[in-house]
Parts: sequence; structure tokens; C-alpha cells
Amino acid sequence: MRAVDVISKKRDGGELTKEEIEFFVAGFVRGEIPDYQASAWAMAVLLRGMNARETTDLTLAMVASGDRLDLSQVVPLAVDKHSTGGVGDKTTLVVEPVVAACGVPVGKMTGRGLGFSGGTLDKLESIPGYRADLTAEEFRDQLARVGVVLSGQSVDLAPADGKLYALRDVTGTVPSIPLIASSVMSKKIAAGSQAVVLDVKVGVGAFMQTLEQAEQLAKLMVEIGHRAGLKVVALLSDMNQPLGNAVGNALEVKEALASLSGEGPPDFVEHCLEVAGHMLRLAGRASDLAGARSLAQAALVDGSALRKFRALVEAQGGDPRYVDEPERLPAAQLVEQFRAPTAGYLRSIHAAEIGHAAVELGAGRSKQTDLIDHSVGVVVHRKVGDRVVDGDPLFSVHANDSTRMRSAIERVRAAHQISIHPVDPLPLFYGVIE
Amino acid sequence: MRAVDVISKKRDGGELTKEEIEFFVAGFVRGEIPDYQASAWAMAVLLRGMNARETTDLTLAMVASGDRLDLSQVVPLAVDKHSTGGVGDKTTLVVEPVVAACGVPVGKMTGRGLGFSGGTLDKLESIPGYRADLTAEEFRDQLARVGVVLSGQSVDLAPADGKLYALRDVTGTVPSIPLIASSVMSKKIAAGSQAVVLDVKVGVGAFMQTLEQAEQLAKLMVEIGHRAGLKVVALLSDMNQPLGNAVGNALEVKEALASLSGEGPPDFVEHCLEVAGHMLRLAGRASDLAGARSLAQAALVDGSALRKFRALVEAQGGDPRYVDEPERLPAAQLVEQFRAPTAGYLRSIHAAEIGHAAVELGAGRSKQTDLIDHSVGVVVHRKVGDRVVDGDPLFSVHANDSTRMRSAIERVRAAHQISIHPVDPLPLFYGVIE
Repeated sequence: MRAVDVISKKRDGGELTKEEIEFFVAGFVRGEIPDYQASAWAMAVLLRGMNARETTDLTLAMVASGDRLDLSQVVPLAVDKHSTGGVGDKTTLVVEPVVAACGVPVGKMTGRGLGFSGGTLDKLESIPGYRADLTAEEFRDQLARVGVVLSGQSVDLAPADGKLYALRDVTGTVPSIPLIASSVMSKKIAAGSQAVVLDVKVGVGAFMQTLEQAEQLAKLMVEIGHRAGLKVVALLSDMNQPLGNAVGNALEVKEALASLSGEGPPDFVEHCLEVAGHMLRLAGRASDLAGARSLAQAALVDGSALRKFRALVEAQGGDPRYVDEPERLPAAQLVEQFRAPTAGYLRSIHAAEIGHAAVELGAGRSKQTDLIDHSVGVVVHRKVGDRVVDGDPLFSVHANDSTRMRSAIERVRAAHQISIHPVDPLPLFYGVIE
Repeated sequence: MRAVDVISKKRDGGELTKEEIEFFVAGFVRGEIPDYQASAWAMAVLLRGMNARETTDLTLAMVASGDRLDLSQVVPLAVDKHSTGGVGDKTTLVVEPVVAACGVPVGKMTGRGLGFSGGTLDKLESIPGYRADLTAEEFRDQLARVGVVLSGQSVDLAPADGKLYALRDVTGTVPSIPLIASSVMSKKIAAGSQAVVLDVKVGVGAFMQTLEQAEQLAKLMVEIGHRAGLKVVALLSDMNQPLGNAVGNALEVKEALASLSGEGPPDFVEHCLEVAGHMLRLAGRASDLAGARSLAQAALVDGSALRKFRALVEAQGGDPRYVDEPERLPAAQLVEQFRAPTAGYLRSIHAAEIGHAAVELGAGRSKQTDLIDHSVGVVVHRKVGDRVVDGDPLFSVHANDSTRMRSAIERVRAAHQISIHPVDPLPLFYGVIE
């Protein structure tokens, strides 16, 4: 078999066999198939597509390229969640302790942010001492002992995916639904997941900007999951405006803590209950979604979810006083509130623009080596559909530098559109695929 | 400007600007744009296409990547020919001396064969002593002194094309009409051509297998030529059966010498007169094609073309006795004639199969480093449409090894199809584009 023939077959719209895909992935990860062949192949895949069978074979070939975490000795059924990334998406910080508090141990390998979309590890590192670099052994131990883990990749999960993603990033081959689907699913499977709730974001602040694209991606990931023997549910959720109110690392941790204490923004809390409900149902803790959601709700009300979060922080070396007293978390030196210049109804809050404003304040990375300022960010005080009166607080910017403050206020202001006519609120979800 | 943005623009079907194309080609040839970006770009170009303006800009950017031969001090108008490659195509060996004998100096930089398609330099090297590695200085001197040159690339012509072609070869990105057109035209322009006759082959023994593809390629090359200020004519010529009778290096030189002596196979001689006629007309030696063809015909009849070929060989260090006595040329140890097993009409002689059989005998290269046996090859004795009688000689195989002899006879035999019904001869040309 020759790499050039596999590339040419896909170039001409052919369907690759399992053997061809395995040959290509194994050769690429061993360095026998050079980058220039892999990038031509990725472009051919992007423009010609791959069906669910090919995409599943690609996913499993990438899983086979590295280690695979086995959690079967530690948990009855390894359930995980994955978000395709958005602005203000601190869902993991709430959902994992909720699910753990309901008696389903959850260990998640999660990542850092790049571009306007934030990362769970960056948020957790707002808490001094928090260690994101557990070994596979520590990961398993903590999962068994505490029932919840949030750490970086402790094993070499799907190295073919890592290598291919780095290449796709510089060759214009990122926006391929089969390549995105196989990248996500290969990491979930390699991390030992047996059931996954996929939170596929759609809107101006998401990678998938149309419902059609998001549905296509969600369906493909669900099908890969089923073909690979996993339980999978995909939720299509809104990412036109930020999720919740806070965007920025410590600000989001504060919002997550408030939510765990029953005082979170309604849209965010509802989002978390839905995700947690699906996870609990997949894990078999309830026979239907309504029952599962009640369990999750109870864990928020009775404080058990917050206690679980505290135990998580403590187990991973973080200072639990920051959980008990969130006002200890890093705070920016400058906070400015922007008030509505006119009355009306909030028509849109452009999520990507809010995300970019936060990155410019220092909350995120433009490139992988950038350092993060955990204290800065943006808090929106109104959501789409809300009625605003002239002078109402619209948003606040938290900054450590007055030049950046000015520029962020301008950007966030421009991201808010007010209409004189009533506006419907945005839905939280557009559908469920399973 | 970033390479990834240029790739992404083409991926999405955008039209690249002159600046984007120049940036990409210059960056690639300097090594600042790595192979993996160039191959992804080439795949995007292959699948999304490029218009004539983009293809011309690509051609000129590749010309600008290296030296450009200036022949203006040596010839009034530099006229050249180019064939897209075929089986038995020894046209250059006849046409260049004919045109030179008609008073139009012609200097051609030509190449070697790869795969089933032969190369002019390999054929000429059947003549002991023939030097194909003239310097640019020697090239110009000989052109002024002798009026004809056939040599390899003496200057670094369009190095971007050379580098890109090597990459295309291993990434499945060869069969792109804009990339083929720009590759051909960049080398012609860099070699100093001001007028070019393009011989675009079509059929089972050519790269372009359908008339539609061949027309598309021809039109695009003509348009690039016009946009770049060249005089250009493209001929669409048949390559379903071999051109002439002989396939193999010394065998083809013998056939070229016979043709220069007025004793060549009719189809091949007619092909040469047509190509030479167009060259002479472009060079202004006659006002119309008929007049130009008469000049060419006269040069064959009066022996001036043969004398010009002899002078060419002598000037480039070849032994002229091989021109005077072609029986001195390398001859294979074994020659076997295959006779028609049945009567009928010759329906097809699969050109690519004849070419592959010659390569297997040692006449060509499967890979660039293979050595060539100049003596071996195939001679067909009948052409498509000919009536054959049971026992008529159909073809001969010239080999130096009995195993290869057997295998070649089998392959060439299978390439011949005989019908009981009358069959029309194949046309030599399908059209002219200018």
C-alpha cells in the first residue's frame, strides 16, 4: 500500500477501507508518512468528505495510536461530557461535582483555552495550588477515593490526533466535520469513556455557526460513538450569547461557585441541570431525564455538589478557603460598569466578540505560549430578550490596565444591540440527538 | 499575509490575487512555506480549480523563481515546441532539424522519460558521445553557429515548478489542469521561448484521456501564453496507438533518421510536417500553414534536414557515423516477430500497454534512478484500420533477455485487437487551438 494511492483515492471521492485508514494513521504517527502527504490527505478529506464508517475507522485508528485509560476497576461505568467550546462555558465546573454528588464517579481529562473560547483547566488554576497535571495513577486513585477528578491529559491520548491537529491548524484543514468528529471522539474513547454527553454549541460564538452544521457534527459523533460501542447523547445548545454572565477565569469560577450554592444565573443553571441529567441517565442513576434532573437539582439544593467541588479542589492541591470564600479569588484592579445608553430590548450579545474582548484583556491566549491573567474578564448583566431601561447596568469589565479597559468597553459595547421592539429570549437548546 | 489564509481561501473556492500567488510561490521556493502547506494548497487547487488569470500569475511567479534564458541576441524569434508526452513520440528529433534547415534557429531544452512515456534526451543518448549537458553559454553559441540545439536544462528554469512537481508527484496532486498548464508554460517561458507549438496528446497513451480534458488543457495553455505575450498554437493529436512504428530509444532514432531521409512511416511524417509547419508559420517564414508545410517538406526531400541533424549530433559531441550508418546504433540481441493469428482489421493498439512493455524491456524508467537499455523496444508493423491477413507480421519485440522477451510479446499481443469488421483509421489530429 502506498500513501499517495490512499490520498488519490480520497481525492477522487472514493471511500477508504479500514485497512487504508489504519495504514495511513499508523504510518503518519510513526513518521513514515510525512506531513506533506498527511496535509494533502486532510485537504482531500475536507473537500470530499468521509462517511460514518470511514470516520469511525479513523477515530479508532487514532485511539490505537496511543495509550488507552482503563477505568473499569475504579468506576462501574465511565461517563464523561464534552463541549465543542464556547464563551462563558464553565459547565464542567458545576456538572462534574453535581454528578459525583449523585453517586456517579466522574474523572475528566480536560484542556486549556485557545482563541476566544476558554478552557476548564485555566479556570481551575484561578484557585492557588490547583494541580492539573495528575499522573494516570493519581487520576485513578482520586477517582476511586473522591469520586471526581478534573485534570489535564495524564496519558498520551490519541497521539495521532494531536499530531494531525497541529498540522490541520496550519494547513487550512480544521473545518472538516469528519475530522472534528474523529478528533473529539478519539480522545473520549482513549480516556476510557463508556458514555458521553456531547454539548455541541451553535451560533456566532461557536465553531459551528449554523444549526445544520452543528446537527451534522452531532449526528456523526453520535454515530461514531454507537459504532464504537459507547452510549452517547448530543445536545445542540445556543452559543450566540455567552453562557451565564461571567467570561474570564476567576469570574467564571465565582459564577460556578454561586451556581453550586443555588444562586447562579438561571440560563446557566438550567444548562447544567440538563447536561447533568443526561449524564446521570446514561449512568443508570435514573430511568428518565426528569428523574435524573431531580437528583441533580437536589445535589445543588442540599449543598452536596458544592461539598464535592470543595473535595475536588482539596484533593488536587488547591486551597479550599477559596471555595469557602470566593472573594479571595484573583480580582482585577479596575472594574467599570457600562450602563444602557437607551431603553429597549436586548437583541443580541455577540458571544465571539465578548470572547475576543476577554482575550484582549488577558483572560485567554492568542497563541499557545501566552500567559493568562486569571483576574480579568467581562460580566454581562442582561441577556437577549431582557427589557432594559436607560441607565440600567448592561455589563462590567474587569481589567488591570486602563488602555485595555477602554478598548474592551468599546468592543463589548459594540457587541450589545438594543432594539426598540420586544425580542424573544434565545433558546438554551435546539435539540437532542441520540 | 499568512500561507494558511491563502490555502483556506482556495479551499473555500476563492480566486487568489496575483499578490497571494506570488507570496505563496516565493515563500515556497525560499523554504519559508513548508511542503505540508504547499501540498494542502495543491490539493485545494486540484479540487477547486483556478481560472486563466490565476494560472497565468502562477506561471509567471514560477518563472520569476529562477533564471530566464535570453536568446534575443542569438535568434530573431525563439520558437519552441512541447509535447505533453506519449508513446513513440520522436517528433522533436525530426521537427527541430527540419525547422532549422528552413532557416529558423531552434534551441530546445528537453527532458528524460519517466513511466511509459519516453524522453528525447534518452533517445539522443543512443548515439555514443552525445552530450545533453550543455552550459547556457554552449547552448547560445551552438544555436548561433549550428542553428539547432537539443540539450537538458542548462539553467535553473522555474525552480519553483521543479520543487512543486516533486511534491505533487507524492501527494496525489499531479492531475490538475491548471497545475499542469502552469508547469509546462513556466518552463517554456523561462527557457526564453517567444512562440510555442504545443502538441497536446489525447488518448489511452496520454495523460489526457478524453478530448474534453485535452481541449481544456490546450485552451488554458494557449490563454496563459497569450496573457504572457507569447505566440502559441496548440494541436490536439491522437495518442491511442503509438506514433509511428518504433517504441524504444535507438529504434526511435532509426525511425527518425528514416523519416529525415524521406522514408518514415506516413502517420509520423505527416505529424512532423504539421508541427514543423506551425512552428515555421509562427516564426514568420511563411504566411500560411500550407506554405510553411511546403518548406518543411522540401527540407526532407532535399536532405537539408538530415544534414542539420548530423550537424546537431556532431556539435554536441555525438559520433556522426551513427547518423550516416544507423545500423551502427545499439541493437538488441534478440528480435522476435509476432504474426497475426487471424485475419481482419486492426481495431486498436493500446498505446500505454506498448509503452509499459517497452519500459519492462528496459527502454524506460519506473523510477528516476533506473538505468536505460537503449537497444530494446517494440516495433509495430500495422496501424489501426489496417487490413491484416493471417500470418502477416503484426509487431516485433527487441530484447536482451528471453524472459522479458516472452513477457513483452504477451503484453504487446494483448494490446492488439483485431476485428472481423472494417475499422476506420484513427485521425492524427482532433483540432487546433490558437
